[in-house]
Amino acid sequence: MLKATVYVTIKQSVLDPQGVAVQGALHSMGFDEVSKVRVGKYLELELGTSDRAEAERRVKAMCEKLLANTVIEDYRYELI
Amino acid sequence: MLKATVYVTIKQSVLDPQGVAVQGALHSMGFDEVSKVRVGKYLELELGTSDRAEAERRVKAMCEKLLANTVIEDYRYELI
Repeated sequence: MLKATVYVTIKQSVLDPQGVAVQGALHSMGFDEVSKVRVGKYLELELGTSDRAEAERRVKAMCEKLLANTVIEDYRYELI
Repeated sequence: MLKATVYVTIKQSVLDPQGVAVQGALHSMGFDEVSKVRVGKYLELELGTSDRAEAERRVKAMCEKLLANTVIEDYRYELI
């Protein structure tokens, strides 16, 4: 069975308020060396298939249709 | 300057309601091959330091104190 790891990140040109909040919190805790924070999602999917090409095609469709909002987010995935 | 990539995942023994919801949504869209979904966080931190050992120590402290709730979450990080 294959496992897919999906990373969804906010595009560089889009403001990331969650990242700004985390950076602020880190600064207030004394971690002043942090100059930028971007927060994204990380998903692990277990797939009931072992056809690699098919899985690749299906995971791409899942990302496009549900897992990522491609207007403001980028995604990448790995099959293990 | 170093960059840290932090992955925060819910421990295997802890229920992941967000993952269950994503799995349900994928099933309702016809992606029936997905047998399990776990959702985590993915953070990119830009650090204003190039001392690798120091950065390692500091990022570990950030994870322990803010980025991960170690009662229910695991974390791992990479320095680039």
